[in-house]
Amino acid sequence: MAPGGIPVSLLADLLAVFIIAAGVGVLVTKVGQFPYTIALLIAGVAASVVGVTIDIELSHDLILLVLLPPLLFEGAATTDLERLRRNLVPILLLAVVGLLVSVVLVGVVGSALFPGFDLLLALLFAAMILPTDPVSVLALFEELGAPERLATLVEGESLVNDGVGVVVFSALLGYVTSSAEGGAGAGELFTVGGVGELLVDIAIVSGGGLMVGLAGGVLAYSVMVSLDDQMTEIILTIILAYGAFLLAEHYAADVLGFHLSGVVATVVAGLFIGNRGAEYAMSPQTKIAVFNTWETAAFIVNTFIFLMIGVTTPIGDLLANAALIGMAIPMVLLARSAVVYPLTALANRLSEPSVPRSYQHVMVWGGLHASIPIALVLGLPPSTPMRTELRAMVFGVAAFSLVVQGLTMSNVLDGLDIVTRSDAEQLYELLIGRARAVDAALDAADELHANGDIPQEVYDRFTSEYQREKDQLNEAIATLMRDNPELRQEQILAGERRLLRREKSALMDATRNGVISGDVGDELIEEIDIKLDRVQDGEQTVSETEEGYEEFWRQRVQEFGLDLDEETDADATGDEELSADEK
Amino acid sequence: MAPGGIPVSLLADLLAVFIIAAGVGVLVTKVGQFPYTIALLIAGVAASVVGVTIDIELSHDLILLVLLPPLLFEGAATTDLERLRRNLVPILLLAVVGLLVSVVLVGVVGSALFPGFDLLLALLFAAMILPTDPVSVLALFEELGAPERLATLVEGESLVNDGVGVVVFSALLGYVTSSAEGGAGAGELFTVGGVGELLVDIAIVSGGGLMVGLAGGVLAYSVMVSLDDQMTEIILTIILAYGAFLLAEHYAADVLGFHLSGVVATVVAGLFIGNRGAEYAMSPQTKIAVFNTWETAAFIVNTFIFLMIGVTTPIGDLLANAALIGMAIPMVLLARSAVVYPLTALANRLSEPSVPRSYQHVMVWGGLHASIPIALVLGLPPSTPMRTELRAMVFGVAAFSLVVQGLTMSNVLDGLDIVTRSDAEQLYELLIGRARAVDAALDAADELHANGDIPQEVYDRFTSEYQREKDQLNEAIATLMRDNPELRQEQILAGERRLLRREKSALMDATRNGVISGDVGDELIEEIDIKLDRVQDGEQTVSETEEGYEEFWRQRVQEFGLDLDEETDADATGDEELSADEK
Repeated sequence: MAPGGIPVSLLADLLAVFIIAAGVGVLVTKVGQFPYTIALLIAGVAASVVGVTIDIELSHDLILLVLLPPLLFEGAATTDLERLRRNLVPILLLAVVGLLVSVVLVGVVGSALFPGFDLLLALLFAAMILPTDPVSVLALFEELGAPERLATLVEGESLVNDGVGVVVFSALLGYVTSSAEGGAGAGELFTVGGVGELLVDIAIVSGGGLMVGLAGGVLAYSVMVSLDDQMTEIILTIILAYGAFLLAEHYAADVLGFHLSGVVATVVAGLFIGNRGAEYAMSPQTKIAVFNTWETAAFIVNTFIFLMIGVTTPIGDLLANAALIGMAIPMVLLARSAVVYPLTALANRLSEPSVPRSYQHVMVWGGLHASIPIALVLGLPPSTPMRTELRAMVFGVAAFSLVVQGLTMSNVLDGLDIVTRSDAEQLYELLIGRARAVDAALDAADELHANGDIPQEVYDRFTSEYQREKDQLNEAIATLMRDNPELRQEQILAGERRLLRREKSALMDATRNGVISGDVGDELIEEIDIKLDRVQDGEQTVSETEEGYEEFWRQRVQEFGLDLDEETDADATGDEELSADEK
Repeated sequence: MAPGGIPVSLLADLLAVFIIAAGVGVLVTKVGQFPYTIALLIAGVAASVVGVTIDIELSHDLILLVLLPPLLFEGAATTDLERLRRNLVPILLLAVVGLLVSVVLVGVVGSALFPGFDLLLALLFAAMILPTDPVSVLALFEELGAPERLATLVEGESLVNDGVGVVVFSALLGYVTSSAEGGAGAGELFTVGGVGELLVDIAIVSGGGLMVGLAGGVLAYSVMVSLDDQMTEIILTIILAYGAFLLAEHYAADVLGFHLSGVVATVVAGLFIGNRGAEYAMSPQTKIAVFNTWETAAFIVNTFIFLMIGVTTPIGDLLANAALIGMAIPMVLLARSAVVYPLTALANRLSEPSVPRSYQHVMVWGGLHASIPIALVLGLPPSTPMRTELRAMVFGVAAFSLVVQGLTMSNVLDGLDIVTRSDAEQLYELLIGRARAVDAALDAADELHANGDIPQEVYDRFTSEYQREKDQLNEAIATLMRDNPELRQEQILAGERRLLRREKSALMDATRNGVISGDVGDELIEEIDIKLDRVQDGEQTVSETEEGYEEFWRQRVQEFGLDLDEETDADATGDEELSADEK
């Protein structure tokens, strides 16, 4: 059986990659507390230094067309949309404004400092290097128990700035290419009109990508909602992840004459299916299968990417351009500081809750530059001026950020006292988690029983067992809360947030359905938003803030002069006070 | 972003394949009871007839090097070794002796009947077409509730005869090629010495493959046993599946001067890891992750193969060679009958338990010829005589076996009374079904009544009647369960599986929403996975395994030193004991 279409050597090289990765995996799980992706990178460099030849080209297309869509889709699908929405202001400010400003900063300073770089080339470098990558950082956060909100900020920013970065890079590359060919490109850019046009371009390309992703997500959702077959739903999500990307990045050009952002399309599709899709269009079993599949796929792709980044790192070029890299590293970090601190300060003025200073430090230091920068620099056309230098700089900064910043992240978190989960909190989470599972099982048993899927006797047996466990759990939770008042306060806040959100969503539904009209709905929703804001500060519960606050509808009832029984009124107030006491 | 190394059109074609597959998947789940793989094949033919062009070549290498190893590995890994061992005599007789004898039969008769075929060419055709493929049949067995043992016989035979078939084919192809080049090959074969040499070759190549697979399995096992990291273990199984194949098929030749059987190596490695590995070297959670991954991978590969077989089917050649195909189909079926009946009779003399006559009919009719025959015929070198005819014949027989034999399998099983759900099970299903209908009627009555569509009196009459029926049904179900403890056990197991899956999904949601953090969630999910695993074995309910098992959260509560009221505590323990007694 002689090899024909598919060279055996390709398979052998892939096998070699996986064998090295397995070795790294075994080592990391034995040693513990060393980030897997960074270990892969180091192993890759080591393998190429000792002369292991792996003939797989980590090309621009391989990363961007094949490897990135599943990573982006999985990252987005496992992101909680509600959480993202609550942190939307700082995320958008950093990922859009922050990225653009830092590109200009690195561009201007770089053109002055990098020998042989004009402004356009320095901007191109900046646009390539500045998008961030959450992979290693998120894994670390989870391992160390960092707050979810910090993870949301870091992941949200990186999901969005990947899209923006790729769009800016493509636009700049157009100018560089036309300028290298003697066109008037570069000059045109540096005018007010040129910059304006660039910004409009970015908005159109990103907005278009968003539409494609949303349309794809809705389409896949509408098929999935009428279906319960886990394998078909897995295939549908695969189609969605790659289809949204290809549609925006390649086929849109056939219709529109210009491409849309595939990165944005895949991210939006992932957010939609991972949230709304998982909630309404998947049975529990399907959800488990779909998420397991994507988790495994993302793991394999990440393994491949980080190891291959190590293998592909041009060590010789890095050494030859050490001076350039030495300048680029602090420049990138300074540019990041220069946008993160002021923009989060601005976000803190515009929206609640504020991003604490300690988080800001983590966001600066946790801005790792990995897959996207490397995909972009590998895709530079051969005619690009200073191509070797650009490659060395991007690989150099990426290696520094992954190895140095990545490895010191846990110290930074420790030093800033950010990993603050008390034992009581941990136990509380455990008990709550188990209680949730028990509740879900009880619900499922009710449902199965109601459908006649399980006979009475089996049902009784299940429910009595689960009910007993639930009682014991509740007992344990109550004791824990009694002994830890600060935990109690926090849980009241969290509970109130959720009730308020439910109230809000019911009102939004009622408004949408026309049960109540828009303006009335807005007033009611606004009321809830005010409460939500107070609660989200995390310092006061709704009941505590109640003084000086009167339910809106009571006010209206009074204004209307409706003659409520005095007793009832008194009753209501009495209840209110009682419930305030209870809390 | 112009496409470079990886053509966008390839990705687009793959997407097209998946989109058609998803459509087929949706259709099949809506219609029900139509085998997915056969629907894919038909859709593939239809797509190529209406002119959908998919520019992916389903080459010999693509099937044999890329697609087949995961299918073989998954098939072997999910085969219960113990069950295989219990049926080893009939399986080995059929897969080794049966295959060889039937190759000779088809070869001799074919050389007489097929115009233009000499004995060697007819033998080559026989060696290609006769290996069987269990995919569609197994799915059908599962759906219809056929006995496990029948599935073991069919799957076991096909796993082994794939290996033997490929070895025989390779040996014959060597003679055909050297004979086409004017060598003395063909003549040499047809001597006592020649046949003896061929048999020795087959033994060496298969035995060598077995050794490679076993060595690889033991090596992977020894790494996995000291490890508990599901992602690394998934990667190790991927390395094993492809590595064993490549090592035997390609690298052995560098050392030995001849290749060993990659198919046998991968099958043996899969059997080893799927049985001994899964039992001793994987935690329950890892086991679920590893098996889920392989199940999904095998599903995707199968989807691709069967759809592409349809797309690749050379309809024109099939029509042009209808006479040849018309002879080949009965010949293959007759050859299969001619070995299955006598050899199972022989096996029944040699070993217990015997294979019933009805199973033998199913084994004849359920011998579908799909991936391996098509991979082999696509790999014929261009110089092979009668290449077009051979392709048409293999595709024709494969299409017939998949569509005609595949689609009539359920009738055959019915006709032979093989789907033997016990009377109790059947009655249980009947009662449950009726109970469901009664519930639905009661719901409808409530609704109609609430809407004022039926008057009170009629409603009362309906509900009292239905309620009485429902009570009687429950009574009947309870009695049935009391009298049939194994049924009760089965229902408890099925119910527990569903409740556990719901628990797991609730925890995944809670983790994603950040209600509990990732590591706590993982611990709780792992606990459920352990229970799921026990329940999935189908031998113990969660409650039965409770002895020696303590809910993880109780342990933690104790560790934390939480002061639960003694009474409650005593209560809890009492309850525990009680529930343990109850069970």
